[in-house]
Amino acid sequence: MDIKTYIDKLANLKIDKMYQNDFLLTWEKTDDEIEAVFTVADALRKLRENNVSAKVFDSGLAVSLFRDNSTRTRFSFASASNLLGLAVQDLDEGKSQIAHGETVRETANMVSFMADVIGIRDDMYIGKGNTYMREVAHAVQQGFDDGVLEQRPTIVNLQCDIDHPTQSMADMLHIIHHFGGVENLKGKKIAMSWAYSPSYGKPLSVPQGVIGLMTRFGMDVTLAHPEGYEVMSDTIKVAQDNAVKHGGKFIKTNDMAEAFKDADIVYPKSWAPYAAMEKRTILYGNGDDAGIKALEKELLAHNASHKDWECTEELMKLTRGGNALYMHCLPADITGISCEEGEVAASVFDRYRDPLYKEAGFKPYIIAAMMFLAKCKNPSAILEMIAKRGHVRQMINDK
Amino acid sequence: MDIKTYIDKLANLKIDKMYQNDFLLTWEKTDDEIEAVFTVADALRKLRENNVSAKVFDSGLAVSLFRDNSTRTRFSFASASNLLGLAVQDLDEGKSQIAHGETVRETANMVSFMADVIGIRDDMYIGKGNTYMREVAHAVQQGFDDGVLEQRPTIVNLQCDIDHPTQSMADMLHIIHHFGGVENLKGKKIAMSWAYSPSYGKPLSVPQGVIGLMTRFGMDVTLAHPEGYEVMSDTIKVAQDNAVKHGGKFIKTNDMAEAFKDADIVYPKSWAPYAAMEKRTILYGNGDDAGIKALEKELLAHNASHKDWECTEELMKLTRGGNALYMHCLPADITGISCEEGEVAASVFDRYRDPLYKEAGFKPYIIAAMMFLAKCKNPSAILEMIAKRGHVRQMINDK
Amino acid sequence: MDIKTYIDKLANLKIDKMYQNDFLLTWEKTDDEIEAVFTVADALRKLRENNVSAKVFDSGLAVSLFRDNSTRTRFSFASASNLLGLAVQDLDEGKSQIAHGETVRETANMVSFMADVIGIRDDMYIGKGNTYMREVAHAVQQGFDDGVLEQRPTIVNLQCDIDHPTQSMADMLHIIHHFGGVENLKGKKIAMSWAYSPSYGKPLSVPQGVIGLMTRFGMDVTLAHPEGYEVMSDTIKVAQDNAVKHGGKFIKTNDMAEAFKDADIVYPKSWAPYAAMEKRTILYGNGDDAGIKALEKELLAHNASHKDWECTEELMKLTRGGNALYMHCLPADITGISCEEGEVAASVFDRYRDPLYKEAGFKPYIIAAMMFLAKCKNPSAILEMIAKRGHVRQMINDK
Repeated sequence: MDIKTYIDKLANLKIDKMYQNDFLLTWEKTDDEIEAVFTVADALRKLRENNVSAKVFDSGLAVSLFRDNSTRTRFSFASASNLLGLAVQDLDEGKSQIAHGETVRETANMVSFMADVIGIRDDMYIGKGNTYMREVAHAVQQGFDDGVLEQRPTIVNLQCDIDHPTQSMADMLHIIHHFGGVENLKGKKIAMSWAYSPSYGKPLSVPQGVIGLMTRFGMDVTLAHPEGYEVMSDTIKVAQDNAVKHGGKFIKTNDMAEAFKDADIVYPKSWAPYAAMEKRTILYGNGDDAGIKALEKELLAHNASHKDWECTEELMKLTRGGNALYMHCLPADITGISCEEGEVAASVFDRYRDPLYKEAGFKPYIIAAMMFLAKCKNPSAILEMIAKRGHVRQMINDK
Repeated sequence: MDIKTYIDKLANLKIDKMYQNDFLLTWEKTDDEIEAVFTVADALRKLRENNVSAKVFDSGLAVSLFRDNSTRTRFSFASASNLLGLAVQDLDEGKSQIAHGETVRETANMVSFMADVIGIRDDMYIGKGNTYMREVAHAVQQGFDDGVLEQRPTIVNLQCDIDHPTQSMADMLHIIHHFGGVENLKGKKIAMSWAYSPSYGKPLSVPQGVIGLMTRFGMDVTLAHPEGYEVMSDTIKVAQDNAVKHGGKFIKTNDMAEAFKDADIVYPKSWAPYAAMEKRTILYGNGDDAGIKALEKELLAHNASHKDWECTEELMKLTRGGNALYMHCLPADITGISCEEGEVAASVFDRYRDPLYKEAGFKPYIIAAMMFLAKCKNPSAILEMIAKRGHVRQMINDK
Repeated sequence: MDIKTYIDKLANLKIDKMYQNDFLLTWEKTDDEIEAVFTVADALRKLRENNVSAKVFDSGLAVSLFRDNSTRTRFSFASASNLLGLAVQDLDEGKSQIAHGETVRETANMVSFMADVIGIRDDMYIGKGNTYMREVAHAVQQGFDDGVLEQRPTIVNLQCDIDHPTQSMADMLHIIHHFGGVENLKGKKIAMSWAYSPSYGKPLSVPQGVIGLMTRFGMDVTLAHPEGYEVMSDTIKVAQDNAVKHGGKFIKTNDMAEAFKDADIVYPKSWAPYAAMEKRTILYGNGDDAGIKALEKELLAHNASHKDWECTEELMKLTRGGNALYMHCLPADITGISCEEGEVAASVFDRYRDPLYKEAGFKPYIIAAMMFLAKCKNPSAILEMIAKRGHVRQMINDK
C-alpha cells in the first residue's frame, strides 16, 4: 500500500478520543482505535523504508521508566521516540529519588515539564503495575489541568501486570501481514499455550494481552495451560466477550496437543500462575524472604512437573499443514540452547527465527503509532504533511 | 508580555561578560545579568507555549556530571539542553574512569571536544563542590586557549556546597510571577527558615542561595534557625551587603514564629549546621567511618531536639493575611506522609501543591537561559532570529 | 586545506567497499580506505570549525556496547554520533538481558531495528572481543539480507583484544598533522615501548594497533619491551609485512634506550604479556578465582622487576633533538602524580599535555569518519552536499 492509502484509511476512522489520551489496555480501545494504531504503524514504516523522516517533534523528551531490565522494549521505545523526534531520558530508580519516599504525583510532574511521552514498564507485582500507570496518568492530567505542565504527556504501557499492549499489537500486526490482511483472519485458529521453563515468575501480561486482543478479529483463540496455571479472570472475561462480539471463539483447555490441533498460529510461552503471583506480591509487601524462597521452590517444582509442555516438532505436526506460524515475544527458553529443557525445541525455534525477528520488528512502529495518535490532533492530516514535506532521514546523493 | 518586549528588554541590559562565561554563584553576577537570566527564561517559555522551537544548536553535547542522585535537577538539565538542541551525555562516575586517578584537568578536556555545556552537581562536601567546578572551568578555558577545544563549554552550577543558583533563580522567578513583577517586591518579607527533618546532612546551598539572591530585590529577608544551625559566614556577609545596597533588610533570628510573623513568603527547609558539615568533610577525607557514624548520631539527636520547627497551620496563621506563599525546593519531608514528623504539616503542603510544582517548573527555563546567555554572543539578536524563524516545536495541522 | 580539497581527494580514492561495511582492524583496510578515513575526519573537523553542521542523519540510533568502563571512548563515540545526527542508545549489560543467555544473534537484531551504527568495546579477553564483533556483524548482515532489518548497522571497533583502530588512527592523524603531512613521515622513527605500571592486565590493543598501522607509512617502527612481554604474534607479522611493502622498518628490541635513540616519536605505555592474558582468559572461563589471584600476583611482581622502563627526561634526551613527540592513549600512569612509580616522569608528561589532548581530540572525528564512509554511498558527493547546504551548527547573529 502506498502512503496515500494509509492517510485515507486513517481519515475515515473515529479516533478523536485518542488525542491527549494514554494507551494502557487494548480492551479499553475501540476497534477503530486499534485499527488506527496498525495503520499509523504501517505508514511510519513505509515512510522510513522510503527514507522519509517522520519527525513530528523538533525537540521534546520521552521519559522511560523501567522497573525491571529489558533490552528489546527499551530499544523499541528509544527507536520510536527517536523516529518522532523525541530524546529519551531514563528515569531509573537508581538514578532518581523515586525510591526515597517521593510520591508518584510529585515525581510524575517533576519529570514532565518538557515531556511529551512517558513509557512505563512495571510488570513485577500483581495489582501494582497498571495501577501505578493510572496514578501517573492522573497526576500529569491534573498537572496539565492546573497549569503546572505546558503539555500533557502520554502514558504508554510498555508492559504491566495485566496487559502488554505494545507486544500484543506488534504480534497482531505481524499476523495481519503474514496472512495478507485482517480480512483473512476470520476463523483462523491461534493457540496461546503455556510452555515449560526452568525459571519461574514470568509475567502473565503476554498471554493475557494476546487473548484480550486476538479475540477481536473473529479468530478462534485457544488458551491452553496445565491445571493451576490460570491467568487473571478479568482477562478471561474480556476474551469471552470479545469472541461473542466479533464472531470468533475463545476456548480454554488443559491439553497442549488439543490447542495445537489444526492451529494456524501457535504461541507457546511460560508464565506463572496468577494465584501464585498474587501470593508473591503479598510476600514481597510483607518483606517475607523465607516465604518468597519457599514459594519459589514450590513454583519451580510445580513447573518441573510439566516439562512435557514443550513446543516440539511432533506438536508442530498437529498444526494446520504442519506449518503453523510459531510466535514468541522473545527471549525464548530453547531446549538445549538457553536451557536444558525449555519452551521450544531448538529445531522449531531455528526454523522460525526470521519470522520471530520480524514479529519483534513491529514493536518500535507500534509504540511510535501509539505516541503519534495521542500527540497529534489530526493524525491523518499530519501524516499527509509529513509525506508532502518529504524530508530525507539520511542524506543521499540525489545527483 | 509578548516576545518583542523580552527582546527589547534584553537589548538594553549590559551583559557582555556573560558570553563564554560560567554560572557558579548568583552574587558574582551583576543585577543586569540576573535580570537577563529571568528575561531569557520567560522568553523561552513564551516561545515554547507558542509552539516555537528555541533550538540554538543543530548538534552538540551537554555533559551532565552528577555526584549524587537527583531526579528533578537531572530532568531540568535534560529539558533545558533538549530545548536548545543539545544531546545530554552523562558522565557518571560509575561509567567513567574519573574515580581512577584521572586529574580533573584531563577529564574536563576529554569530555569537552564537542561539549557546549557542562552541568555539575557536587554538593556533598564543604569546600569541595564549588572548588571542583572552578577547576573544571579553568581546565576547559585553558584547553580552549591552547587550541585543544574548538569551543569553550560553559559550566552551569547545578548545586554546590555554597550556592544552588538554578534553584534560587527558579524560586525568585516564581516569586516575581506570583507578585506580578519585580517592582512589587520592595518591602515584601520572606522567611527562610530551618525546619525539622528526620534525615541529616542536607546541603546548605538552598538557604545560602536564597539569602544571597533574595536580598537583591529590596525585600526583607529573615533567616531563622535554631542555635547551632548557622550557615556559611561568607554567605551571611553577601546577604548583609546586598540588603544595604538594595535598600532591603537582612535579619537573623532563632525564632521560627518571629520569622513567620507578617511574612509574605515562607521557605521552611531542613539543613545541616555548617560546622558539622565541615567536620564531616574532614572525617570523610580521613576515611574515619567511626567518626562519621558518631557525627551522624549526634546530628540526628540534635535535629530531634528541634521537632517544633515545623511549618504548621498555626505558624502559617502568623503570616501576612494567613496566606503567605509557601515555598520549597522539593522533595519536602511532610509530616505523616513522607515521615512521621517533618518540615511541614500535610495540610499546609497540600494546599500549596500547585504553586510548588510551578515553582519547580521554572528551573528548566532558568538553566536554559544560563546556557543561552553564555553561548550566544548577541542574545537579543538571536532571540529575535528565533522568533522570526518561527519553527514549530511540534507539527500541527495548519490547514 | 579547504573543504573542496578534501572532497576532490576523496573522489579519487577507491573506497567502494567501505559502504555498508564495518571497521574492525586497520590491516583489513586498503591504503585508500585508510586515507579516506583521515580525509573525512579532517573534512568533518573543518566543517565544524566553520560552524557548518555535518548532520547526515535526521534521526536514527547509534548503539554503544561497552563491556568495560571508559570515559574518553564513550564520549568520543557520543560526539561522533551526535555530529552525524544519531542519538546514542547504550546497551549496558546491567540494563539489558544480554547476560541472561540471549544469543548474540538475537540481541544484535533486537537492538538494530533502527540502528545505523553499533560501536563495540570489548577488550578484556584474548580471543573474544574481535570474535564477538564479527558475530554481531554477521548477525546484522544476515538480518539485513533476510529483510529483518531495514538498514544494515555498521560495526565500529572501539577497542578489542587485537586492535584499537579508532585510537591508532587518531594517533596517526595527530602525527600527520604534527609533521605537516603524510609525505613527511618517510624514515621517521617511532618507538612503541612498554613502560612500567603498578596495575596489571592492561590491554594489548594499543601497541598492536600502533605497530599494525604505523608501519604503513614508510616509518621506522621499533617495538620495545622487556623479555616476556611479547604481543600477539599475528600482529608482529602484520607489522613486518607492512614494513616490507611500504619501504619502512619494523624492529623489535628489549632495550628501551635503544628504541628511544634518535626517535622522532615515542609512545611508552604499559601492557600485559600476551601469554599471560591468554592464560587469564582461560582462568576466567573456568571460574578459577584462586588461579586468577595467583596470576595477578605473579604479573604484578613481574611488572615490578621492570620499574626502570619509565619515560624519563634522560631517555627523552636520547630522542632526535631531545624533543621527540611524546604520545599516549591516556590516562597515563604518571610517576608521583597518579602513582608512585609509573610509565612516565611528571615533567615529561606535563610538557606534552597540550599535544596529548590534541591527539585525543582526533578520535571523535576518526569515529565519525568511519561511520560516514560506511553509511554514505558516495561520500565525496555527500560531503559536497553538506558544504553547499551550509546549515549552521549554532545560530549566530549574521546581521
